[in-house]
Amino acid sequence: MDIRIGVVGATGYAGVELVRLLTRHPCARVTYVTSESRSGDSLDAVYPHLLGFTDTPLVEFDPAEAADACDIVFLARGNGWAMEHAGELLESGCRVIDIAADFRLADLDVWQEHYGREHTAEELAAEAVYGLPELHADSIASARLVANPGCYPTSAILALAPAVAGHWVRCDGIVFASASGVSGAGRSRTEVGYLFTEIDENFRAYNIEKHRHTPEIEQELSELAGESIAVTFTPHLAPMTRGIHTTAYATISDIQDGEAIYQAYVDFYQDAPFVRVLPPGQLPATKQVTGSNYCYISPVLLRRTGKLVVTAVIDNLVKGAAGQAIQNMNIMFGLDQITGLDIPAIYP
Amino acid sequence: MDIRIGVVGATGYAGVELVRLLTRHPCARVTYVTSESRSGDSLDAVYPHLLGFTDTPLVEFDPAEAADACDIVFLARGNGWAMEHAGELLESGCRVIDIAADFRLADLDVWQEHYGREHTAEELAAEAVYGLPELHADSIASARLVANPGCYPTSAILALAPAVAGHWVRCDGIVFASASGVSGAGRSRTEVGYLFTEIDENFRAYNIEKHRHTPEIEQELSELAGESIAVTFTPHLAPMTRGIHTTAYATISDIQDGEAIYQAYVDFYQDAPFVRVLPPGQLPATKQVTGSNYCYISPVLLRRTGKLVVTAVIDNLVKGAAGQAIQNMNIMFGLDQITGLDIPAIYP
Amino acid sequence: MDIRIGVVGATGYAGVELVRLLTRHPCARVTYVTSESRSGDSLDAVYPHLLGFTDTPLVEFDPAEAADACDIVFLARGNGWAMEHAGELLESGCRVIDIAADFRLADLDVWQEHYGREHTAEELAAEAVYGLPELHADSIASARLVANPGCYPTSAILALAPAVAGHWVRCDGIVFASASGVSGAGRSRTEVGYLFTEIDENFRAYNIEKHRHTPEIEQELSELAGESIAVTFTPHLAPMTRGIHTTAYATISDIQDGEAIYQAYVDFYQDAPFVRVLPPGQLPATKQVTGSNYCYISPVLLRRTGKLVVTAVIDNLVKGAAGQAIQNMNIMFGLDQITGLDIPAIYP
Amino acid sequence: MDIRIGVVGATGYAGVELVRLLTRHPCARVTYVTSESRSGDSLDAVYPHLLGFTDTPLVEFDPAEAADACDIVFLARGNGWAMEHAGELLESGCRVIDIAADFRLADLDVWQEHYGREHTAEELAAEAVYGLPELHADSIASARLVANPGCYPTSAILALAPAVAGHWVRCDGIVFASASGVSGAGRSRTEVGYLFTEIDENFRAYNIEKHRHTPEIEQELSELAGESIAVTFTPHLAPMTRGIHTTAYATISDIQDGEAIYQAYVDFYQDAPFVRVLPPGQLPATKQVTGSNYCYISPVLLRRTGKLVVTAVIDNLVKGAAGQAIQNMNIMFGLDQITGLDIPAIYP
Repeated sequence: MDIRIGVVGATGYAGVELVRLLTRHPCARVTYVTSESRSGDSLDAVYPHLLGFTDTPLVEFDPAEAADACDIVFLARGNGWAMEHAGELLESGCRVIDIAADFRLADLDVWQEHYGREHTAEELAAEAVYGLPELHADSIASARLVANPGCYPTSAILALAPAVAGHWVRCDGIVFASASGVSGAGRSRTEVGYLFTEIDENFRAYNIEKHRHTPEIEQELSELAGESIAVTFTPHLAPMTRGIHTTAYATISDIQDGEAIYQAYVDFYQDAPFVRVLPPGQLPATKQVTGSNYCYISPVLLRRTGKLVVTAVIDNLVKGAAGQAIQNMNIMFGLDQITGLDIPAIYP
Repeated sequence: MDIRIGVVGATGYAGVELVRLLTRHPCARVTYVTSESRSGDSLDAVYPHLLGFTDTPLVEFDPAEAADACDIVFLARGNGWAMEHAGELLESGCRVIDIAADFRLADLDVWQEHYGREHTAEELAAEAVYGLPELHADSIASARLVANPGCYPTSAILALAPAVAGHWVRCDGIVFASASGVSGAGRSRTEVGYLFTEIDENFRAYNIEKHRHTPEIEQELSELAGESIAVTFTPHLAPMTRGIHTTAYATISDIQDGEAIYQAYVDFYQDAPFVRVLPPGQLPATKQVTGSNYCYISPVLLRRTGKLVVTAVIDNLVKGAAGQAIQNMNIMFGLDQITGLDIPAIYP
Repeated sequence: MDIRIGVVGATGYAGVELVRLLTRHPCARVTYVTSESRSGDSLDAVYPHLLGFTDTPLVEFDPAEAADACDIVFLARGNGWAMEHAGELLESGCRVIDIAADFRLADLDVWQEHYGREHTAEELAAEAVYGLPELHADSIASARLVANPGCYPTSAILALAPAVAGHWVRCDGIVFASASGVSGAGRSRTEVGYLFTEIDENFRAYNIEKHRHTPEIEQELSELAGESIAVTFTPHLAPMTRGIHTTAYATISDIQDGEAIYQAYVDFYQDAPFVRVLPPGQLPATKQVTGSNYCYISPVLLRRTGKLVVTAVIDNLVKGAAGQAIQNMNIMFGLDQITGLDIPAIYP
Repeated sequence: MDIRIGVVGATGYAGVELVRLLTRHPCARVTYVTSESRSGDSLDAVYPHLLGFTDTPLVEFDPAEAADACDIVFLARGNGWAMEHAGELLESGCRVIDIAADFRLADLDVWQEHYGREHTAEELAAEAVYGLPELHADSIASARLVANPGCYPTSAILALAPAVAGHWVRCDGIVFASASGVSGAGRSRTEVGYLFTEIDENFRAYNIEKHRHTPEIEQELSELAGESIAVTFTPHLAPMTRGIHTTAYATISDIQDGEAIYQAYVDFYQDAPFVRVLPPGQLPATKQVTGSNYCYISPVLLRRTGKLVVTAVIDNLVKGAAGQAIQNMNIMFGLDQITGLDIPAIYP
């Protein structure tokens, strides 16, 4: 197979990570890359780590050209772009994976509340599949349009899915405390707050009251629970480039022992090649997955306070963005999920 | 006033931070410094940042010499040392502040469970005052023996004290997710896990099931609540040297509005010169207090999930150790709490 | 004495560091602070680490108001600002220290070549004293206008001054390889290149062919040598916030032994309270001077290749900017150089 | 082809990096891994980033077993180990690449002076080939025993080889100022100096007077020049995990223009797939090669001072150790040099 791939917004961190990961994909090649700011340049002029690995010139997006050059197009632009342009690509026969947030929420009222604008592609939103392969592999396989999950939601949902789906934790009072590296803010956020001087040796929470990733988490956990779940989600910024660490807290409703919990997690993820449930006693660290598509998870039972505490780590640019998108593409094209992604993290 | 000070264990990070901070104290001077490993050397040979600021030679601890040279002795050795040696210092008329954990817990069964050894100084433990000035200033003033709080507990207790004391949050289900810089592990922890290569670009939880600081937090919050409180406390290691950030979660029992909550916090800390409750909309960051004795706190009400989320930051080596010890000393000697400590953080 | 101080450009890193350091100056207080972008705000709203330490409101610069409120004004604006505004301040009787580069070079042709614009204050440039107290304390004492040296030149000149002044190294072939933390780029450089993601885990040289600090170094070394010196200076960016480390290479012309070299350095700096020549065998590290005004220097003789290799470290925001400016002010007002600056570095 | 590979010392950073890189090599597989400290464990228990990528158990080294299981053995133990054990492996028919320093220097007197012990394998030292493929590909192809170069020498030699071989720089007065990430110190250096707290926000030179990598650089440059070259080499430690940046200074003897210099470099490396000479105006940064086997080089002519300044970057664990070893293996087994190594760096 030879899948022809377009990357729209290739000079952002998610876009360029797509290109990096795809250099080693055996059945796909990048045939079309766009950049609003750097069209005319080559991608390796913007990102010298790709010197010699890419020769497709950056162009301005043109839907007809894209459709002509690609079997699938990854949209790695800002929120709001995909809902304007995904339709014409789909009509031309391309399949589309949106790495931004336009099609992640089924409830468009909630979407509009969080993204502060009107949603202009209601039908596409209804059609889109939430691209978390560990939960929706079947729908993804036949989807024309996949909404790649947010980075925080990927780690948060995977951390609690087995417990919520198994109905052995309470649906109220769920808390997620997540810490993220700064690359999640992207490369165009050239604001004071993302300068090295302001991030280095610093740790802080942000958007405590309202974060756009909360409804994603709630949507997926509610579906697993079969009832409406509201969660408390707190994102934090850690002085590192890559990695998300999520610590999830839920109240055990049906007391189990730690071994049974471990087994429940292992069973839930037995067909998920990128989720590794760590053996009891081992906790994950973000650096263990840097550059890879893996999610490491450790569920721990605290008998004294009746809490299930689950820690989960991903690389926000890989399993939290570009890698997961390729995993989705693999499923959409009938390939093994791990094709081109079976690479270990880089450590130290 | 001219307080003569001894620092036992001056070559650890807490010990040397005491010496650094005391260089600018107007009413105190360091007259006695000990080091097991480097006696005979000068402290500035071990720590060149103190070149020219210290000329007291490092000696091996001798209780008679210490009592002779000092009005107060700070014990900055490992856990278990103080309970063997504090008694003889007190008998000689010295006052003592233990920066380790020997006298922090009133319940010695709990102490023994967490520290894995027998407590050999029961009477001293009963006499010792828990040195969190924001809660116990009066007892500290007259204390002979002060147990300086742990770094995590300082931030955690201060984060929820106003709410727990005010009885407007529930006592069950309290969660603390804390992230610490690595200096909290000390300088003698020359283990693989604390190498730069293993910490840099890495974030992880540790000791999820059991951490020695949990009973400290529970002891103080229970006293404030007037009933027994069990908390879920999760420490995390962040890739930075200094700073602790604690995110506290409690369930609101008596719904208030955000403004009332802010005011309750401001009122609770009106006499606490080192606690700054940030105005609504502002969240603290660890780097805002680096090198200083301040604790910045921000309480946020989440109406949707009924949670109070409080973020608090301290410098673990200052308000979490050496600075708080000096603050306690100031109180013990009738000085203004802020004497020698009214210095801003260093930023960026 | 009660020196009234103005800081023009207080929201830049050098400006706010001035305010931080001056909070502990016993004979000076900040009475006037300006900000182009944040006038109307308070400085601690921009920099929460100063909460409670500053209450002078940020205003837009007004020369009459400045002259009225201040005995001395520190100009911490971009290059080119001082030459437009220093004159009127001086005429009003204020003394002025420019922390930017407008008055550092005596040769205005060279200035114009490096700064790419016409110099519009020729007379002031002729009057200004280069504010490196270790070389020019006498002229600084009586100066109306002081040009605070660049951060790289401070470390580079101090590294080789004893050797060049002593005429025991050759004047040709001198090389400086310097590494700087990123705060030197300032807070307004919100460019991609200064994002945390681009600096973290990264090290690179820049401006190899031409850097504005080269002529400063050459001007001062030439004066010391009594002949024209051209140097090769290479700046590098290191993944840290503060600190400059300079490694200087010169060819020994008159072979000495290491002990004599050490002694020559100690003698040269015997009256320089902020320069510490490290004993043979000890090398400086940037973190040993973080937050302090010290310069640590270590000269090493390599007999095999006939090179003198000198390493020197400073905190670029203190001895490389704000601290040196205060040191200059102390001299200008007849105070001991170390007044308000005798504080040790913060470590670790 | 199916090359069977042994890694002796697999739990060090170079050893585990070999295993990581070899997971994607199409013609080789790891069949034998040893660890002195962790034999009996699996490698992924020591390094969870390899979970699922390695199932060969760690054993204690046994020469007969090694010879039986392997076509080639990489020795990633400390200095002095290989000279005791390489012989028996070679006699059994294995080929050997030593990643430590035992066979790097042809002059054993110099070796003994720098490594402080007697060399016990004189014949092997005479037989060994210095494994810098850009200079010695032909000898490597037929070698039984390859001495993998040091990390600093790899960057330093590649930086100046074209100029020295072309005889257009002077042989005296050459200076190298190199900065390295900390992983070069390895994982067993659990000393205070390598703790995160001591490295973070810190930059310092070390071993200025004498470093073991100096004679390696001199040996290779002297061979290229056809005359004896003594260099001044200064290593620095930068607060990062991976990466070496070398700035090389040489005096131009035969003045060329920048374009001619660029072309000379391009020509010299035209058959070197891992060396990329950057176009004029572009400077390399260490992060551009993180995780990859590339060396980026930029030669710059400073007409004013007559200096050639060349900056070069590598990943010290890849091109400076494990990757270069695999490159050597590829050549030894008649494979294309880039086999299994044609992967881009990870960025950011």
